[in-house]
Amino acid sequence: MSSVDARVAKISSLVRTIPDFPEPGVQFRDITPLLADPDGFRETIDVLVGQLPGPIDVVVGIDSRGFLFGAPMALQMDVGFVPVRKPGKLPAPVFEEDYLLEYGSSSLNIHRDALRPGQRVLIVDDLLATGGTLGAAAKLVAREGAEIVHVETVIELAGLGGRKHLGECGVTSYSSILVC
Amino acid sequence: MSSVDARVAKISSLVRTIPDFPEPGVQFRDITPLLADPDGFRETIDVLVGQLPGPIDVVVGIDSRGFLFGAPMALQMDVGFVPVRKPGKLPAPVFEEDYLLEYGSSSLNIHRDALRPGQRVLIVDDLLATGGTLGAAAKLVAREGAEIVHVETVIELAGLGGRKHLGECGVTSYSSILVC
Repeated sequence: MSSVDARVAKISSLVRTIPDFPEPGVQFRDITPLLADPDGFRETIDVLVGQLPGPIDVVVGIDSRGFLFGAPMALQMDVGFVPVRKPGKLPAPVFEEDYLLEYGSSSLNIHRDALRPGQRVLIVDDLLATGGTLGAAAKLVAREGAEIVHVETVIELAGLGGRKHLGECGVTSYSSILVC
Repeated sequence: MSSVDARVAKISSLVRTIPDFPEPGVQFRDITPLLADPDGFRETIDVLVGQLPGPIDVVVGIDSRGFLFGAPMALQMDVGFVPVRKPGKLPAPVFEEDYLLEYGSSSLNIHRDALRPGQRVLIVDDLLATGGTLGAAAKLVAREGAEIVHVETVIELAGLGGRKHLGECGVTSYSSILVC
């Protein structure tokens, strides 16, 4: 087993599956045991940083579990961190993007002055499911005129169409650590 | 100006005040310029870690801006991170504490298996105002049987009674970087 495989196996062992949350039939991937394990959390950040295909200027992290991975990544890479947040949370003028949920819709905001045209951006969240949230974040970054270099999550729920949706939102480069 | 004073002045210069958010008359302290500045963000984490009065075993960070500072602190100190979250977000059995807002009330949750009795805990958030949120977090940590060594925020809004309320919630040690 290579070093990377060993790290992935360790990270995988620290994500627990909680059945029927938030509703019957859903297998929820719980990252709290990973966060509670200092070595596992550190290695997760290291693997995420190691998967980047090229240099970036800014990490964009999504409210709120994306903050847990995006902020440490930004500090480790010595680049800035920009939050994408739910409506009503950011105090300065924002761009807003709506996206569809299974039932109804939601929105995400970014400060209009958060990014500069041409900046190379990494977008981070904990999990890719249908891609609604990350797709909206990608559209927000594009509205700033910045370049989406890569999108990264700890976990990918394959088979929910997330990668395809990201592609439709202008994302050409995506990776995760764990595929479930 | 000492090194610490210079760092505090730098951190202070990266927190901007947005008037009348989220409602008229409120001066909102916006940390997004601080997060976007890699040196400022790094120094914030360093100062927060440097203010700790003693060793800890776990960082408890509050949803969601507390994640931005608490997770990097946990990684820097090589200890685990535990999230305190809004209701409906944590998938395993939780303890819940209600707290008062200006109008109405809210609740915070922690996983029942998140901490062990006797663990030394640091609680982190971005800002102390009236102390409702941090007080509820302190009560959750106490219900786990863990020991609250210290509570820390980047910003303290003095004069809103936050420190007094924390004391009533069993917190005997508190510090911030900036007092507004």
